[in-house]
Amino acid sequence: MPDPKLLDTFPTPTDAEFVIEHVNEEFTSLCPKTGHPDFGRIVLRYAPAAKGMCVELKSLKLYYQSFRNEGIFYEAVTNRIRDDLSQCLQPRWLQVITEWRGRGGIHSRIIAEYGDVPGQWMQG
Amino acid sequence: MPDPKLLDTFPTPTDAEFVIEHVNEEFTSLCPKTGHPDFGRIVLRYAPAAKGMCVELKSLKLYYQSFRNEGIFYEAVTNRIRDDLSQCLQPRWLQVITEWRGRGGIHSRIIAEYGDVPGQWMQG
Amino acid sequence: MPDPKLLDTFPTPTDAEFVIEHVNEEFTSLCPKTGHPDFGRIVLRYAPAAKGMCVELKSLKLYYQSFRNEGIFYEAVTNRIRDDLSQCLQPRWLQVITEWRGRGGIHSRIIAEYGDVPGQWMQG
Amino acid sequence: MPDPKLLDTFPTPTDAEFVIEHVNEEFTSLCPKTGHPDFGRIVLRYAPAAKGMCVELKSLKLYYQSFRNEGIFYEAVTNRIRDDLSQCLQPRWLQVITEWRGRGGIHSRIIAEYGDVPGQWMQG
Amino acid sequence: MPDPKLLDTFPTPTDAEFVIEHVNEEFTSLCPKTGHPDFGRIVLRYAPAAKGMCVELKSLKLYYQSFRNEGIFYEAVTNRIRDDLSQCLQPRWLQVITEWRGRGGIHSRIIAEYGDVPGQWMQG
Amino acid sequence: MPDPKLLDTFPTPTDAEFVIEHVNEEFTSLCPKTGHPDFGRIVLRYAPAAKGMCVELKSLKLYYQSFRNEGIFYEAVTNRIRDDLSQCLQPRWLQVITEWRGRGGIHSRIIAEYGDVPGQWMQG
Amino acid sequence: MPDPKLLDTFPTPTDAEFVIEHVNEEFTSLCPKTGHPDFGRIVLRYAPAAKGMCVELKSLKLYYQSFRNEGIFYEAVTNRIRDDLSQCLQPRWLQVITEWRGRGGIHSRIIAEYGDVPGQWMQG
Amino acid sequence: MPDPKLLDTFPTPTDAEFVIEHVNEEFTSLCPKTGHPDFGRIVLRYAPAAKGMCVELKSLKLYYQSFRNEGIFYEAVTNRIRDDLSQCLQPRWLQVITEWRGRGGIHSRIIAEYGDVPGQWMQG
Amino acid sequence: MPDPKLLDTFPTPTDAEFVIEHVNEEFTSLCPKTGHPDFGRIVLRYAPAAKGMCVELKSLKLYYQSFRNEGIFYEAVTNRIRDDLSQCLQPRWLQVITEWRGRGGIHSRIIAEYGDVPGQWMQG
Amino acid sequence: MPDPKLLDTFPTPTDAEFVIEHVNEEFTSLCPKTGHPDFGRIVLRYAPAAKGMCVELKSLKLYYQSFRNEGIFYEAVTNRIRDDLSQCLQPRWLQVITEWRGRGGIHSRIIAEYGDVPGQWMQG
Repeated sequence: MPDPKLLDTFPTPTDAEFVIEHVNEEFTSLCPKTGHPDFGRIVLRYAPAAKGMCVELKSLKLYYQSFRNEGIFYEAVTNRIRDDLSQCLQPRWLQVITEWRGRGGIHSRIIAEYGDVPGQWMQG
Repeated sequence: MPDPKLLDTFPTPTDAEFVIEHVNEEFTSLCPKTGHPDFGRIVLRYAPAAKGMCVELKSLKLYYQSFRNEGIFYEAVTNRIRDDLSQCLQPRWLQVITEWRGRGGIHSRIIAEYGDVPGQWMQG
Repeated sequence: MPDPKLLDTFPTPTDAEFVIEHVNEEFTSLCPKTGHPDFGRIVLRYAPAAKGMCVELKSLKLYYQSFRNEGIFYEAVTNRIRDDLSQCLQPRWLQVITEWRGRGGIHSRIIAEYGDVPGQWMQG
Repeated sequence: MPDPKLLDTFPTPTDAEFVIEHVNEEFTSLCPKTGHPDFGRIVLRYAPAAKGMCVELKSLKLYYQSFRNEGIFYEAVTNRIRDDLSQCLQPRWLQVITEWRGRGGIHSRIIAEYGDVPGQWMQG
Repeated sequence: MPDPKLLDTFPTPTDAEFVIEHVNEEFTSLCPKTGHPDFGRIVLRYAPAAKGMCVELKSLKLYYQSFRNEGIFYEAVTNRIRDDLSQCLQPRWLQVITEWRGRGGIHSRIIAEYGDVPGQWMQG
Repeated sequence: MPDPKLLDTFPTPTDAEFVIEHVNEEFTSLCPKTGHPDFGRIVLRYAPAAKGMCVELKSLKLYYQSFRNEGIFYEAVTNRIRDDLSQCLQPRWLQVITEWRGRGGIHSRIIAEYGDVPGQWMQG
Repeated sequence: MPDPKLLDTFPTPTDAEFVIEHVNEEFTSLCPKTGHPDFGRIVLRYAPAAKGMCVELKSLKLYYQSFRNEGIFYEAVTNRIRDDLSQCLQPRWLQVITEWRGRGGIHSRIIAEYGDVPGQWMQG
Repeated sequence: MPDPKLLDTFPTPTDAEFVIEHVNEEFTSLCPKTGHPDFGRIVLRYAPAAKGMCVELKSLKLYYQSFRNEGIFYEAVTNRIRDDLSQCLQPRWLQVITEWRGRGGIHSRIIAEYGDVPGQWMQG
Repeated sequence: MPDPKLLDTFPTPTDAEFVIEHVNEEFTSLCPKTGHPDFGRIVLRYAPAAKGMCVELKSLKLYYQSFRNEGIFYEAVTNRIRDDLSQCLQPRWLQVITEWRGRGGIHSRIIAEYGDVPGQWMQG
Repeated sequence: MPDPKLLDTFPTPTDAEFVIEHVNEEFTSLCPKTGHPDFGRIVLRYAPAAKGMCVELKSLKLYYQSFRNEGIFYEAVTNRIRDDLSQCLQPRWLQVITEWRGRGGIHSRIIAEYGDVPGQWMQG
């Protein structure tokens, strides 16, 4: 079951604004309607706040793995991750892009954001 | 025959603006002049309205399949899908891009929009 | 309905053995179980017999199009095309490879042959 | 000889602004200096005017083919096509990009425009 | 838990030898040592026996999904699938190739076979 | 009109067997049925005979250009080039592969040979 | 020795602003420190002035070849070409991008400009 | 140990603003937690100040190599390089992008900047 | 210092011959002449003997890491790995391919083998 | 002027047969007819004799650079390199493949060999 308490943080190494991007190529959850597995790729981008926190990479991996046997829609996964991570990190801005391998010839991408994402990041 | 009544919806999971993209790699219709099949790829992007609706993925697939034996021009397909989906979803904005494998060495792309599509999406 | 009478031929321009390959990127038929469309790519390779026949390209296209609304399994499509074309052309050898975009994360390829296909062609 | 009278049109299916792109992968003309053939790719993009006209695809192909044995420079081809098509269609805006396979290790691209091409299209 | 009873079959449509290939891009199991998920791609190739059986595609998908929460090594997955499928299908020959996304900079591939795999397939 | 007299030769620089490959990315001729241009790529491979001749590169280009306004089928182009070049060069062996951009979703490849082409070249 | 007098020009075919891009894949000069050859790719983009001049393509090739045995740093090559061409053409704007294959695991790119380069070209 | 004294500089060849990009494909340091090596790619972009300095390429390589056996986090590497180079060069602006091959299915990218990086460079 | 005692093994799960391939994308050692780091990719393939041993993946990673600060030539690395692993595993056959990013425009590949490597693997 | 005395060697590190491949991406010479530069890529493969010699990499680079201002045909370059290296190394076998960027739409490849090149290497 998705568990934000798995997320660990450490203080940003600088007060300057900078951008961190973590791309998870190995995300899987279950379709809540059919029970079949969904496979996706998750791009997380954020700028830590001054004196703010960064997410620790191994804890992020474990957090993502906690969706493995959860029945949950694409849109809900994306908004859930956005909410959990923005609450945990309180960043300047944060962006979550989920890309799904798809079913029946249609593949999908969902983009959710927190704060004021700079323009150059907005197409995903 | 293209049938918008095939489209099913569900409420957006958040009031925040976010972007949904569904890419159909397996679209086919017929050329109204020659009767020969056309093959294409359809990118649909939209931002659901606050308290608005999202299109259900399987119903979208069936809606696209309803063009299979329809004789219809590239431009008409694109505008038809834009009209059917924007009427059904009443989104903040919506964009339909059709890409066609082409004939005689020329391949084509048509882009139709509804509402105020943000600049970063406008090149297709 | 698949119709081999659509196939037209012309005499080979040489008695020497040579190889002809036609790749159709735009094949579609229906799944006999679900009625959903299948999309594929068909590679046809053959060596005309001395004094034998070649398949005319436009007639081959029409023949392939005759599967458009036929409910038929991958394996049956492949064997059907192999049978229709080898009967029509009586070639030295002939090979049909169908590649399918797939469903549920699995994509497939079927290879059927007639006569003695030279080793270098056998992997598809 | 390049012949704009080959161009055929039909009325735009909507008064809304939308974008049409036709990419010709098979353009050839002759170098006016050496007589050797030049090979290129032509991207045409335009937005039909409200109540305006679209170019018919097959007529566009024939128009392009009319350059086959014409000795004409890259720059002249590009401006000629821009002029012929913008005169014929009177669009909101129009863009012609020619990309040439090149000679002697240098390949080239020419971009000519009519009207106010939106910024997202301007890099070609 | 991996369950070969999920596998369904149907009779081969022809007595001629032909080749069937199913590629699963979405395989996942667990590392028996660390409990972390492994992600892979599985290529299955086989030639049904004369009067023999083919594996039904949807049942194959369910069979693969039954490894989802199994702790099992790469080598064991590969040999297990080879054994289950060759026992179930009794084919002329069968080949299983598993390709793993890897850990710590090393990615792996395992190839197991049943019967006399023709030379052109042996490199994977 | 295709003109083998355009072909120029020079003596092979060594008596040892070696392989020469010239790939022409810019071939065009006309379809004899419709008059529409065909575009292709031609791979020529050969091993000069001991004390034999090599084809001069610029003359080969001019020879290929002489097909520009000729109405001729794929198969005839391929066999014609094979015949002209093998007669002119009298090589140990020679192979001509023509690859055509295609029409109506089908693209083609023709392979014609002279003499005993070594196995590793036979798939094109 | 780099020689701008090799550059030849011709009048722009139109008073409208348009863009010309020439990409040289085959540039080489020498490292002034080690004498070893450097290999690069040069992108030249410019908009001819109204009533202004375009650079003739063959003369551009010869001008680039005049660097072949010159010992000159990346930065100096780039600025030299920018200066020579902008002086010769007096364009609305001009951009020179040099991309170098690199040494010791580091490859480089230098971008120099003249006049007011439109924003869409500025990333190279 | 990372050593900025390894960095050597030379005066910019022009007072005009221009952009220099050096891409190091071969960066390695150690994970401070596990001691395992990290492998990455580093993009450095900057515009030298008028009368300012450029970094000498070989000294940059040696500076990067000085991280080889240092235990240091992704974020710290990126900010360290940004600080060392901007202090040494005092450029108009400078951007450091580190891209890491990743562990456990997640790969990362960190972007740190100095001064006013122009918009077209901001996505990395 | 390269240390074969780091290598750990486990018994092959089957007596049947099968193939294991481990690809390490992150190998580094030092040039014994210049002290500069070399970066490479190592492909290891082998078939365990009946009742024989397989190499444990994490131990293989540590073994490879033990070359990190060793000054050693390409050829010596390759033969050393071949010798250490074939001695440790006593496989039916084993193949080591090292691919090096290279210096001064030349990149290299070395292939060393133990036992009778089947033909389909011999090109690397 | 091409100078085989630049070639340096060192003894093979093993009596076992193994394969060495050096790929030079940065070869240039001059066309003897036009004086224009030719650019190519050279693949060298060989198996050192037992107790035989390997070519030293830096000396190979200098040897290749000695062709820089030599007017010499593709075929002559290839045979010259084959002769110089096989005389210098006396290997079990040796293969030289030159690949040329080409002129006028035709690019070329020449393959010359010494001794008994194993079949898997023969296609280049």
